[in-house]
Amino acid sequence: MLETRLDTGRIRAARQVIDPVFLDSPLYCCEALEPELGCAVSIKLETANPIRSFKGRGTELVASQLAENGSQAVVCASAGNLGQALAWSGRGRGLDVTVVASRFATATKLDRIRALGAKLELVDGDHELARERAAAIASYDGIRLLEDSLDLETCEGAATIGLELVDTKPAFDAVLIALGGGALATGVGHVMKELAPDVEVICVQPLGAPALSRSWHERRVVTTATTNTIADGVAGRYPIPAVLDDLLLVADDAVLVQETSIITGMRMLLHHAGLVVEPSAALGIAAILEDRARFAGRHVATIICGSNVNPDTYHQWVS
Amino acid sequence: MLETRLDTGRIRAARQVIDPVFLDSPLYCCEALEPELGCAVSIKLETANPIRSFKGRGTELVASQLAENGSQAVVCASAGNLGQALAWSGRGRGLDVTVVASRFATATKLDRIRALGAKLELVDGDHELARERAAAIASYDGIRLLEDSLDLETCEGAATIGLELVDTKPAFDAVLIALGGGALATGVGHVMKELAPDVEVICVQPLGAPALSRSWHERRVVTTATTNTIADGVAGRYPIPAVLDDLLLVADDAVLVQETSIITGMRMLLHHAGLVVEPSAALGIAAILEDRARFAGRHVATIICGSNVNPDTYHQWVS
Repeated sequence: MLETRLDTGRIRAARQVIDPVFLDSPLYCCEALEPELGCAVSIKLETANPIRSFKGRGTELVASQLAENGSQAVVCASAGNLGQALAWSGRGRGLDVTVVASRFATATKLDRIRALGAKLELVDGDHELARERAAAIASYDGIRLLEDSLDLETCEGAATIGLELVDTKPAFDAVLIALGGGALATGVGHVMKELAPDVEVICVQPLGAPALSRSWHERRVVTTATTNTIADGVAGRYPIPAVLDDLLLVADDAVLVQETSIITGMRMLLHHAGLVVEPSAALGIAAILEDRARFAGRHVATIICGSNVNPDTYHQWVS
Repeated sequence: MLETRLDTGRIRAARQVIDPVFLDSPLYCCEALEPELGCAVSIKLETANPIRSFKGRGTELVASQLAENGSQAVVCASAGNLGQALAWSGRGRGLDVTVVASRFATATKLDRIRALGAKLELVDGDHELARERAAAIASYDGIRLLEDSLDLETCEGAATIGLELVDTKPAFDAVLIALGGGALATGVGHVMKELAPDVEVICVQPLGAPALSRSWHERRVVTTATTNTIADGVAGRYPIPAVLDDLLLVADDAVLVQETSIITGMRMLLHHAGLVVEPSAALGIAAILEDRARFAGRHVATIICGSNVNPDTYHQWVS
């Protein structure tokens, strides 16, 4: 048994609570990517759902527990995807949802949070300031604070992707996971290490937001003063110690990639796979592009974790 | 019991034969489309699979039957998606696959057919000439000719989409189906009329390729001398009588849309849903755009039937 905070039995049970619209997402080999990448690439597509990211898996758990307990409100900080997910899951259960975000967050993400009926509060700073403000609101209002990656529901929700990956034939050799706060990596990583321990678990982060990757390499929390990346969904500066502890148990590697590789990855996914993805979702392809020798001839899976982009910005990236 | 050529029991049985990678495709409500369209739109996404279209459902049936019978070869005419599907399904079963296509077909579709190991033969004419040539090859070589929409497997494969649609809660009021040869429309339409008869079945064809729609309205086969549409996947001129007979039993309407509406639909699906679609897959949105009053306040489902586009051409359409 792995000594992470996660439990595979609880993760299996989570599947019974999550709205099926988020479960059993497509998983398929995209052969058109193979000639340029030099390896077989399977896509786990987490964008074909009402909120265009994997975050609904976790917020379904949180919102259903709150509704069961008779709670009426919840607040979270978000770069935009968790907020949409919590707004969606909360709306269906009559919860008042407040989302705190940076005023520099992706505009379409903020628009969707509002459209889903959540209260949106913007802070004049980055995601770490939004986290502080969300905690203050929770404390002042006496309501549940949902903390991405720290709160187990967010990890368990993401981990259900892992269950779907290990059920696959043919199995793959490595899984490439976008590394932000760590919920996706520790969740999926936990399941892989328990049920498919031969699969290499590789976390990928932008060079411009390397805090958790550096922490993993140094085996202690390393923070950064700033972030500088287009991958808004993974741009944190203050890793959570408990999440790092789990990541140390489940990740085989944590690699950093350049912005140009992320953009090339987005362009390749558009042209060869017909997929619109946000920068965080192209991190896996970027990692292959930066180390083709490592992956040559292997079969890798990559999780396409979100597709929420500003159309104009996206157009500039891929054209 | 509907007196079409299809049988719901056989359609249910088909699910056991089709590779699961093509089944249970995503179905979700895309709220971001609602403000501009004035109705709730659910997306049935048939592009998140190895060949980026729904055609694999039918070719899986054909190829498995051929393999069971000890057949070694099969030929089809294709605008590009059926050919990819048959190449994929045939390759997995050791079949020699020949695809006949127009030399004016979408280049990336032809590239993918070759990449999947099929023999590709191009004719210097349109899809109807490709159909003639495929029939001649089958006759000369004594091999199976797969005729899209005429051969029941293609309709039954498509019809499994209908089974997945009727399982949905909440149900919708109408389903918008791209109309080409008719396999998708008669397959899905048959299931809807048997299992969800209150759902309006609306077929959509481009004004530039109206043969089967006109045939439906006139209740007799109407051919056209030419086609003129970007929706290459549905550009036929000679409707098949047996398919028209089925369509008359299952379709509630057949509407024609303009090219500009198809392009607007593609652009809306990209900007509001993050989906790359080929023109045929935007026909449903085009139909809403051209008759907002008809759909106002209703819940419609539209089948996103394919996403195989030339990147450059696609870029010109949506920008």
